Amino acid sequence: MIHKNIIRTFMIEIPSTPGNLGKVATVIGLAGGDIGEIETIQVGPNYTTRNITVQVEHEEQLSDLLEAIHKLEGRFRIHTVSDEVLRSHEGGKIHMKSKRPIESLADLRRVYTPGVADVCRVIEAEPEKARIYTSIGNTVAIITDGTAILGLGDIGPVAGMPVMEGKAALFDKLAGINGVPILLDTKDPEEIVQTVKNISLGFSGILLEDIASSHCFEVEERLKKELDIPVMHDDQHGTAVVTLAAAISACKSAGVDLRKARVGQIGLGSAGLAICRMLMAYGVKSVIGADKSPEAKTRLENYGGHSVNSIEELMECSDIVIATTGVPGLIKKEWVRQGQVILALSNPKPEIEPKDALQAGAAYAADGRSVNNILGFPGIFRGVLNAGFTQITHPMLVAAAEAIAACTKSGDLVPHPLDPNVHEMVAKAVECT
Amino acid sequence: MIHKNIIRTFMIEIPSTPGNLGKVATVIGLAGGDIGEIETIQVGPNYTTRNITVQVEHEEQLSDLLEAIHKLEGRFRIHTVSDEVLRSHEGGKIHMKSKRPIESLADLRRVYTPGVADVCRVIEAEPEKARIYTSIGNTVAIITDGTAILGLGDIGPVAGMPVMEGKAALFDKLAGINGVPILLDTKDPEEIVQTVKNISLGFSGILLEDIASSHCFEVEERLKKELDIPVMHDDQHGTAVVTLAAAISACKSAGVDLRKARVGQIGLGSAGLAICRMLMAYGVKSVIGADKSPEAKTRLENYGGHSVNSIEELMECSDIVIATTGVPGLIKKEWVRQGQVILALSNPKPEIEPKDALQAGAAYAADGRSVNNILGFPGIFRGVLNAGFTQITHPMLVAAAEAIAACTKSGDLVPHPLDPNVHEMVAKAVECT
Repeated sequence: MIHKNIIRTFMIEIPSTPGNLGKVATVIGLAGGDIGEIETIQVGPNYTTRNITVQVEHEEQLSDLLEAIHKLEGRFRIHTVSDEVLRSHEGGKIHMKSKRPIESLADLRRVYTPGVADVCRVIEAEPEKARIYTSIGNTVAIITDGTAILGLGDIGPVAGMPVMEGKAALFDKLAGINGVPILLDTKDPEEIVQTVKNISLGFSGILLEDIASSHCFEVEERLKKELDIPVMHDDQHGTAVVTLAAAISACKSAGVDLRKARVGQIGLGSAGLAICRMLMAYGVKSVIGADKSPEAKTRLENYGGHSVNSIEELMECSDIVIATTGVPGLIKKEWVRQGQVILALSNPKPEIEPKDALQAGAAYAADGRSVNNILGFPGIFRGVLNAGFTQITHPMLVAAAEAIAACTKSGDLVPHPLDPNVHEMVAKAVECT
Repeated sequence: MIHKNIIRTFMIEIPSTPGNLGKVATVIGLAGGDIGEIETIQVGPNYTTRNITVQVEHEEQLSDLLEAIHKLEGRFRIHTVSDEVLRSHEGGKIHMKSKRPIESLADLRRVYTPGVADVCRVIEAEPEKARIYTSIGNTVAIITDGTAILGLGDIGPVAGMPVMEGKAALFDKLAGINGVPILLDTKDPEEIVQTVKNISLGFSGILLEDIASSHCFEVEERLKKELDIPVMHDDQHGTAVVTLAAAISACKSAGVDLRKARVGQIGLGSAGLAICRMLMAYGVKSVIGADKSPEAKTRLENYGGHSVNSIEELMECSDIVIATTGVPGLIKKEWVRQGQVILALSNPKPEIEPKDALQAGAAYAADGRSVNNILGFPGIFRGVLNAGFTQITHPMLVAAAEAIAACTKSGDLVPHPLDPNVHEMVAKAVECT
């Protein structure tokens, strides 16, 4: 669930008379630019220099926007247009740091030779001591074959590395976990499974990331069966956890009982199907689904759901609608039922704009902008590592979703993704299942 | 080349009258304890509390030593005997850190979604940009199958992890490199090669570590051939680089011309054979070797050396002797020739004690205590990464050895392993070959 947008920062000189910043903000908005931070660089008697961060969807919008600013009456000068995103990725986003000072021969004798031999012998004698005397117990591999990077598709693992580094950076910041990106130079499920098994001794958890369906199912199922450490495909279960949390919050706002409701899912890709399983694990009795692919429908039936043949039919008989199709505007206003809860989660554009859904009579409607995996995986892995679990089970994931929902302010869909309290609560919930 | 010793720290209360610390130091020394740091914890009117770090070879020595201290006249009280080595390894020695702040939604939008999608597209369009926008260009995999950990043998990769973490910590501290330990759950050369190839996209270098001969030869040769990033087996070439540096310094002290000299190698294991190749790459015309294994002798002949049948014969006709057998006291004093240069490098006990060799007429003699791989691998990889080399060649390794020798104080065998200047010089030398 990813915005495919372009972020740029304009350093712009604005005449220091009231209303001029407003003029700039207005033309940016009218040109389709979404304004982020505005930072004041320098305040002069005649001119004020500001950094304005703007998000647009296409290169064309950028030029329109710059032109619109140039056309403003008065002296508005754009000094630079910088790509802060690229700049913030220069040199990569992660680094393997030593946790110990190594400044003297004494340090060296402790952390390296000859001292280290002692530690090796201790672990040789009692292998479980590796959890104490190495980083293994706190290390999770972030593994991708690059076949489904964000919404970009099969762009390869190297082009996907910035995402893996992002996950590792978030593991560090939000859960104190060592995240180690592993880029697989194979898309063959058999070879993927064998390779991951061959390097698994160095990790206490496996986060599968951006692996395309359908081989993502086979890879995850086999690794779960053949490894004795927790394995989770984030694009399936991480997404499903946060979606369940969002559904719980939405139903609370709308005064609907999620477990008793009939949930209709539009789109049964790997995320959609994982959401279906998560809903059932949570206790939802009736889940129906629509998808173009017969294979996906069969999977749904296997998980205990029922498939319907048209979106219209699904809208007709669903109390709650969850759409994950990636198709903007797929849901027609006239299909919306009175009192329906609608989560149109595709990014950057939802299947139906929340305001249109509400106009059409929905009791609650939201898009996927705020529904972010970040709320799930750090706390989930912190919890299983703390508990030393060897599996990630649906009860753990449901507990995580309930913890996220419990941290959500009334009226909101999900909490702030960087609220450390959320990740702590998720970890505790998982640890205590 | 590893000391298999035990390091303990005694917190001991010593009467505050002159000579008492001396008494303690004496009994420790006589009991075979090697004293490291002495730290003063508390100075009182009657008693001074000190932390004394002591290294011994066997548990028995420890108890003898403690008993000897108890037996001292006056009130000498040992408060604690702590294992600072184990303590300094608790929780592991490395952690994957985020290099960027992630404190606001703005940070998140830059380093993660939606911004990261932009960076992925840039790399998809120009793959070489991965060197700029990811950590791959600065990341080296530290790979072991655990078959030859230090001098401990085939104790498995998990028990070897403290060594791999030590290497990663040193990569960070001495060369600013991301070192990522990879523990292989297979000893099969074919499977090792395939696994490393399948994960190689995430790295710009491969450090093979503590892999036993003879499969270490096949694994390294194949990976060098089949990968387009630098691959080095540290136990072979890292050791050989530092040994060549030591030989250069030793010959300088003894006024011998290494290139013109006849070098005799006792012990032709993976390190011994790599040293032979390094000597020849440096320009040594004549290398002879002795080893129990016929296979090792054949390898020596293939590399252009000549094998002899006895150590006695080798000592007879060598100007310079390099011993790497692991067998203490293997070289008899009566075998030593006048003016010979002798490097008895096995740890913890050399093939002949330097003082005995000198007594017997050697022009220069040293053991392997100071000959440490740390002097080699960080700078070597810093150099190849800086230059973007796809191979590590013998000319690069010889340049590294000469840089280490150039940084060695006259009379010394090698420089201080933590002298940052050495690692910089090694990196420059490698980068400029």
